[in-house]
Amino acid sequence: MTTAEFDALFEKVCNWGHWGPKDELGTLNYITPKRICEAAALVRKGKSVSLAIPINTVAGPDNPRPAFHYMAQAYDTPNPAGQPQFAMDYLACEFHGDCHTHIDALCHIAYKGKLYNGRPASIVSATGPSAMDITAYANGIVTRGVLLDIPRLRGVKWLEPGEADTDEELEAAETAEGVRLRDGDALVFRTGHHRRRLERGPWNNGYDGEGKAGLHSSAMAMLHERKVAAFLPDGDGETVPSNVDGVAYPIHALQICAMGMAACDSLQFEDLVAVCEEEKRWEFMVVAAPLRMPGGTGSLFNPIAIF
Amino acid sequence: MTTAEFDALFEKVCNWGHWGPKDELGTLNYITPKRICEAAALVRKGKSVSLAIPINTVAGPDNPRPAFHYMAQAYDTPNPAGQPQFAMDYLACEFHGDCHTHIDALCHIAYKGKLYNGRPASIVSATGPSAMDITAYANGIVTRGVLLDIPRLRGVKWLEPGEADTDEELEAAETAEGVRLRDGDALVFRTGHHRRRLERGPWNNGYDGEGKAGLHSSAMAMLHERKVAAFLPDGDGETVPSNVDGVAYPIHALQICAMGMAACDSLQFEDLVAVCEEEKRWEFMVVAAPLRMPGGTGSLFNPIAIF
Amino acid sequence: MTTAEFDALFEKVCNWGHWGPKDELGTLNYITPKRICEAAALVRKGKSVSLAIPINTVAGPDNPRPAFHYMAQAYDTPNPAGQPQFAMDYLACEFHGDCHTHIDALCHIAYKGKLYNGRPASIVSATGPSAMDITAYANGIVTRGVLLDIPRLRGVKWLEPGEADTDEELEAAETAEGVRLRDGDALVFRTGHHRRRLERGPWNNGYDGEGKAGLHSSAMAMLHERKVAAFLPDGDGETVPSNVDGVAYPIHALQICAMGMAACDSLQFEDLVAVCEEEKRWEFMVVAAPLRMPGGTGSLFNPIAIF
Amino acid sequence: MTTAEFDALFEKVCNWGHWGPKDELGTLNYITPKRICEAAALVRKGKSVSLAIPINTVAGPDNPRPAFHYMAQAYDTPNPAGQPQFAMDYLACEFHGDCHTHIDALCHIAYKGKLYNGRPASIVSATGPSAMDITAYANGIVTRGVLLDIPRLRGVKWLEPGEADTDEELEAAETAEGVRLRDGDALVFRTGHHRRRLERGPWNNGYDGEGKAGLHSSAMAMLHERKVAAFLPDGDGETVPSNVDGVAYPIHALQICAMGMAACDSLQFEDLVAVCEEEKRWEFMVVAAPLRMPGGTGSLFNPIAIF
Repeated sequence: MTTAEFDALFEKVCNWGHWGPKDELGTLNYITPKRICEAAALVRKGKSVSLAIPINTVAGPDNPRPAFHYMAQAYDTPNPAGQPQFAMDYLACEFHGDCHTHIDALCHIAYKGKLYNGRPASIVSATGPSAMDITAYANGIVTRGVLLDIPRLRGVKWLEPGEADTDEELEAAETAEGVRLRDGDALVFRTGHHRRRLERGPWNNGYDGEGKAGLHSSAMAMLHERKVAAFLPDGDGETVPSNVDGVAYPIHALQICAMGMAACDSLQFEDLVAVCEEEKRWEFMVVAAPLRMPGGTGSLFNPIAIF
Repeated sequence: MTTAEFDALFEKVCNWGHWGPKDELGTLNYITPKRICEAAALVRKGKSVSLAIPINTVAGPDNPRPAFHYMAQAYDTPNPAGQPQFAMDYLACEFHGDCHTHIDALCHIAYKGKLYNGRPASIVSATGPSAMDITAYANGIVTRGVLLDIPRLRGVKWLEPGEADTDEELEAAETAEGVRLRDGDALVFRTGHHRRRLERGPWNNGYDGEGKAGLHSSAMAMLHERKVAAFLPDGDGETVPSNVDGVAYPIHALQICAMGMAACDSLQFEDLVAVCEEEKRWEFMVVAAPLRMPGGTGSLFNPIAIF
Repeated sequence: MTTAEFDALFEKVCNWGHWGPKDELGTLNYITPKRICEAAALVRKGKSVSLAIPINTVAGPDNPRPAFHYMAQAYDTPNPAGQPQFAMDYLACEFHGDCHTHIDALCHIAYKGKLYNGRPASIVSATGPSAMDITAYANGIVTRGVLLDIPRLRGVKWLEPGEADTDEELEAAETAEGVRLRDGDALVFRTGHHRRRLERGPWNNGYDGEGKAGLHSSAMAMLHERKVAAFLPDGDGETVPSNVDGVAYPIHALQICAMGMAACDSLQFEDLVAVCEEEKRWEFMVVAAPLRMPGGTGSLFNPIAIF
Repeated sequence: MTTAEFDALFEKVCNWGHWGPKDELGTLNYITPKRICEAAALVRKGKSVSLAIPINTVAGPDNPRPAFHYMAQAYDTPNPAGQPQFAMDYLACEFHGDCHTHIDALCHIAYKGKLYNGRPASIVSATGPSAMDITAYANGIVTRGVLLDIPRLRGVKWLEPGEADTDEELEAAETAEGVRLRDGDALVFRTGHHRRRLERGPWNNGYDGEGKAGLHSSAMAMLHERKVAAFLPDGDGETVPSNVDGVAYPIHALQICAMGMAACDSLQFEDLVAVCEEEKRWEFMVVAAPLRMPGGTGSLFNPIAIF
């Protein structure tokens, strides 16, 4: 895709102004009360699974900013007096990156100096954003999740780095699974990124490395038409190398900046897949709540699928 | 209550061994698939509200360990080449404490050298716990939440520091609200702690300060009988000063160490109360998922109530 | 002092351009090789003392940003194989503030949008300063230190909050101690701030609290004339409330922004005073080296006086 | 060297009890007042140079725990009122490791369950050491530094990973430089580790990687005989792979645990070498002061050489 084609696509999927100039919810506006109730009605088995990767404190080729986790207090000295004793810990994390399951705020990305809804990038300063931080999502994402499992469709364990999934393949996955994305849905998009990492170990998946599998930029038009509310990929959704000439991170630019779509990052679906296969259904309730962190450009979180 | 009476109560509510010697779920075992489905069936309005306090970076009398939150990157330099730009941030937090909405792991508290299920406190070392860390709750707490709103019952804005709520008052609140706690429920327990803080400002609520309102230790017997799965108070559930002679944090000792109950800490119910009043119902679906943090003695989180 | 008088004083002591437009050393330029050799010649007793306060991890009225210090690893498990084992720790600190002995970089303060040497404040962005960070001082401050002990002069234990020390009093202290500040010196300026804190406990010393004792703004003219290279106060040098109408932190503005003087902050001289009294001399060698931290607006450090 | 030979060497160089059972200074006891004065007398040129590497925030094969450095505040909003504005930053670091210039405390290493002076490893708990932390060095190391520049002796740019320097070579370097180590000296030991890193880029220098050049374990006997007070290597002093069968980190075990020698780690001497060559002398004053950090198992620092 040329830069010009990308810019045209950006225009096409752009939701700026659609929910008013002060909107900070973006595509979460598609999740109506009705959709929330319908999502809850999918809970028929009574089982929940985590979609998060364990927090990773070990540096590696895909984890240049490992989290710091320390004990603040353990049970060093037995307490004869019978008073309760406490163990406490501490976490420090720069959480954007491929080894920390997180969600992005709408202020996380600027394209040509503009954020979602056309706001200027200058609203984000050294002390943080003055709007569109992660607290806009404080009440969580509660909606129907639809897993489109591309390796299942292709009959492979995972997509190899650099492979891009198109809208046609998304539709083929819908057909194979008997489900169809609609307005307000959370698209749970599986390339097998995490499965590959579990089996092969971490690799440099960046633009200077082996790359990663993801969505083809053109597929964002389909997500726009279907009015998808949130995007939950393993990996970060990007295909690396980029399939747009001269533009890195085109998926982020389209989904967050143009569309205002809730962008999740670096999830895992190993437990989820097992339940989907067992249940033979690929739709479920999703509840995903970021930490209520004023000024956050995103947040660590632990999204939950409920069957 | 004397120490001896407390120790007898500890014995009475003790669940050690109840779910086997390797159990790490404790009272979450009460949440059966059936209960999860029934919780989801409460979603009839299609509305979610956060039960978390915003992360607090300002030191104060009740916040001696303020969180550190910094921007790692903002949009300092406009990018003429049209490449997307990113804003990123960083969070560091020792999250146990009264100003960070969090959940405790079952390894968080030892009484007389023992943790829940009778395990020795020595399993928690300088590098962390070898069992019963917060990842035991990775799949989240998904169940019915029941708000018992004590200030509403009493016709006050909040309970004053030092005031303790008894089982009789919990039952009176049940009656007033037309709801009854049962096995697998999450007890959402409101003293108005956060409302008082909003109106009066922070105060030293510790054992060396003004104290706080909470549950009376004796009420834990009722929670045990009712097989409550999780406890979500504003404040931390404790009454300060302690109503047990010679034992600080008796609620924590009983609920976590003896009962293995999922203990949440420092929530707020201001938004929740408004919806309950509007809906005239005090039961709802709760989804609460800690970060998937290996070695965590607890976790920051953002519990969500869904109507 | 009126704002206009302050601005005139700012002009008077201004060193902008004095050492060229690219200068990042400011008054450290006064420390010639000769002065360094003369400082070393003061080492006749063979004794060194620290001028730093221990790093403080406890929040208090003057410590709103306590440092975080944790063990990363201790000796949890004895090693039968005889391999060495290691204990490790971790420090996190936002070090500007009254409870962390530190030095400021020349980029630390802007007055009317300008930094030292007239550079625009805009050179400091969300990712840090592009010039005049603390690495400009990487080779340390090595020079003669002169302690002017104002409580000794006044015959009191400490100056009370709000009390300001004038140039006349500095000169009286010089006379009493038989020493005279000259070009290249480090002025070690004692108000007894730390002594008061040791005896009375911490207090809110800010503009919204009890205040603190320090230098009178007018005395900066004397420091300018004498060509003092570095300023090492207990407290932070400021008198609070400010003795300049409408300008907070006038000492910082004058010494860092106008003069380019190396500004140290929150030292203690309890050990130093003992040696000075014993030796009956108030001059000594000072060696003070900030951490070599690219982008630092200052640094924790441990300045050493050598007799 | 066999493990048995190593254990015999450990015995031979062991200083336990030498300065009393409560000693926390170890070989710094060799630095007498006379030695401090003699060190100061070496200051004849009036020039200081840093021996520290810049703090490194980028993960790499030799930097698995990169430091976190963030701006806490920049000059986002121009201040029309003329009030001074401040830029502030934050540092978080687990500083032991090959990319952070630091000094180790005597509690940093245990061998066979014992620390220096025979104290049990158990004095270091999850909340830190109860003795022999880094504050024992609060008054800094002030003594003569002697650079033994092994690449200069060999006529190479650096020693290759795995190469070990023996006592004979140390003596040859002494002869070549016309200097002789004596009691109380700081041995500044150069293998060219940092020079190699500058030219070749970082490499995995660990036991699972390419290794590093360092001191041969047997040379510690010479340092013991000469009564060296402190050891300041580029690299960390170790030869990797270890030249002791079955013992990793033998240099650390000998110098810290057996000898109680002040162990510095990961310095650079590129600026130092230039001055030494220019001056044709390899002795100078060293002043090296750790942060005054209670409970520290070591500290970031910036050691200074003064000519």
